Amino acid sequence: MKEIDGGICAVRGVRAGGIKSGKMGLAVIIADGSAAGLFTRNKVIAAPNIITRERLQKCGHLGAIIANSGNANAFTGEKGLADAKEMAYLLSKETGVAEELIAVASTGVIGRKLEVGWIREHAGEVIRSLSSSPEGSNAAAHAIMTTDTVLKESAVELDSGVRIGGIAKGSGMIEPDMGTMLAFIYTDADLSADVLDSCLRIAVDKTFNMVVVDGDTSTNDMVLLTATASASIEPTIEEFQTGLNHVLTYLAKKIARDGEGATKLIEARVMGAGTDNDARLVAKTIVRSSLVKSAVFGKDPNWGRVVAAIGYSGAIVEQEKISLSFASGEDIVHLVGRGVILDPTSNATNALKNIMEKEEIVIMVDLGVGNKNATAWGCDLTYEYIRINAEYTT
Amino acid sequence: MKEIDGGICAVRGVRAGGIKSGKMGLAVIIADGSAAGLFTRNKVIAAPNIITRERLQKCGHLGAIIANSGNANAFTGEKGLADAKEMAYLLSKETGVAEELIAVASTGVIGRKLEVGWIREHAGEVIRSLSSSPEGSNAAAHAIMTTDTVLKESAVELDSGVRIGGIAKGSGMIEPDMGTMLAFIYTDADLSADVLDSCLRIAVDKTFNMVVVDGDTSTNDMVLLTATASASIEPTIEEFQTGLNHVLTYLAKKIARDGEGATKLIEARVMGAGTDNDARLVAKTIVRSSLVKSAVFGKDPNWGRVVAAIGYSGAIVEQEKISLSFASGEDIVHLVGRGVILDPTSNATNALKNIMEKEEIVIMVDLGVGNKNATAWGCDLTYEYIRINAEYTT
Repeated sequence: MKEIDGGICAVRGVRAGGIKSGKMGLAVIIADGSAAGLFTRNKVIAAPNIITRERLQKCGHLGAIIANSGNANAFTGEKGLADAKEMAYLLSKETGVAEELIAVASTGVIGRKLEVGWIREHAGEVIRSLSSSPEGSNAAAHAIMTTDTVLKESAVELDSGVRIGGIAKGSGMIEPDMGTMLAFIYTDADLSADVLDSCLRIAVDKTFNMVVVDGDTSTNDMVLLTATASASIEPTIEEFQTGLNHVLTYLAKKIARDGEGATKLIEARVMGAGTDNDARLVAKTIVRSSLVKSAVFGKDPNWGRVVAAIGYSGAIVEQEKISLSFASGEDIVHLVGRGVILDPTSNATNALKNIMEKEEIVIMVDLGVGNKNATAWGCDLTYEYIRINAEYTT
Repeated sequence: MKEIDGGICAVRGVRAGGIKSGKMGLAVIIADGSAAGLFTRNKVIAAPNIITRERLQKCGHLGAIIANSGNANAFTGEKGLADAKEMAYLLSKETGVAEELIAVASTGVIGRKLEVGWIREHAGEVIRSLSSSPEGSNAAAHAIMTTDTVLKESAVELDSGVRIGGIAKGSGMIEPDMGTMLAFIYTDADLSADVLDSCLRIAVDKTFNMVVVDGDTSTNDMVLLTATASASIEPTIEEFQTGLNHVLTYLAKKIARDGEGATKLIEARVMGAGTDNDARLVAKTIVRSSLVKSAVFGKDPNWGRVVAAIGYSGAIVEQEKISLSFASGEDIVHLVGRGVILDPTSNATNALKNIMEKEEIVIMVDLGVGNKNATAWGCDLTYEYIRINAEYTT
């Protein structure tokens, strides 16, 4: 497997385009094939998610995606459903793709009527710009950004020749639960909707579902995976799963590192848990903790907050069995070994301070009660996060 | 029932004192009587909590409390247990109160050896200063403060003549779970340890356990309730429960409003839930949401974030049944009625902006699926919260 350029347009059979104008954006992707999707588990679910989930359940096939940024079209009642359907209708009319094969996605402010007029005005322009070159993927990825500061796209070519590419957006209101933020993934492999669904669930659980920016689960999370079959290659499921995990891990880390206001990536690696769920709980609780996040921002070697987070995670832990290390790149400092503080002198604190200066902080925990592992990603909590979210609609 | 001055020293049979010097503080309270306590459910539980819980389970009786601030004596192993015992021993030696009737409490940095030398040096001074005047309560409440910016004490006199008084501390690492921050409550009623325990559980569940500052549950939460019987009055349990709820509600709101860096108090009142637990879940999820907290700080009328929080709370909700209003004092704006946005014009937004300017924001939610209610308290998320926690140990 090797990483390649081009995002979703690296995948044969995909054309994409998009525009971004102020807070509003519109992306279109045309690619036909069997498909699977995962959606937010927030009980307040946005109109486009309701429509897209229904269509995907019926057909297991997608022909196109139309997605807007700037307005979530969430908590908008019957009008919201009609507006989401109109987005699909606009695309169908211009391209001939059947309406029921078009997925609709939205991201932005909740509880405001969608600006359908703006979308109607700009749909033609986006459709005329559709391209299978890397610029197409780039434009679509750019169009769905909100408070994101970096573009999120990734692609790999497997040894069999199959390609997998994806774009994503996500920066705030991030604690995906079974669904994710917006992520559109494509492959030119020839795979059925059932296989795609199973692979997608496995990959999302290890990647997007292990990202926490602020602990708020969105109303609009959506990840879609379409297989165009254009490469006429049927990879082994194992090979495909490995490639899919790779692309989604890359995008998940990008989202964590680009968390609203973030200056650092935090990776929590937990091992020695009694169950998979306990490992996940502990890893996510560490990256969710406001106190851990603030300490990382302040480069404060206050590792006691990690121990407190482990303790209230809800997982089965015994304090006298916990081991804790911090690392970044080649540097590592072992702080606690089976409940005992290893070096209570300022040497350990100085080594830790040195690591806290880095841009990627890895927190390694061994719970010492089993053999299950999990990794979660998050970011620091900064003045800038508060500025962004204190001024969001004003 | 009427509110009275004097904190815990308003209660007959209580003497208290304390000193605070930089980050270190030491408080002593002498009061003999049947007693009950609740402790953090964090699985990493601090040494003083282990010792005090054991002693209270054995006797149901307390003679005194010794509490320090500046160091949590948490995750400190065998040495931590020995240090906690030495605190009780020092107090016993100077006052004659039996060691096994002395409760020990600590609050501060986790994972550092307790400065027993400092406590040994200052214990005599504190014990000589013990007083049954309001100054005694004040000094003890002051001594246990860490990042707290206001003193937290409260007292009431019931119609029967019984008095209940309490002091508390708490500002960060606040999402109490069954235990609480530090809170020491006294009454001069004549009540058994069993009655105290039952009343305390009920009161804490409605008050301290409904406060969220940052969602981090401490390793050191502890609330102790002692009945000195000095008033020789046995109130009805109903009357006592009402008074206890009143004192704890006052202290709980004080802790929320004094959340680290807070500029505003947020009160989430949820009604119409299917179960008590669902009502609590929704109320706490709203005040825990980083996005709701940031919006309140920024006076941003972004009510969609409240709806998103309701949706991911885990409670059973149906978006077309949710009603939402914001209020402060006499002002109120009804935003959503059974899933329908009531006034999509700028009138509602302007009325909401007006409320967001106030210091106490009440968020009222009717889930419309049942008849259970709950209220939770929190505070806004500010630049100052991050400054405090980015620089905590450095």
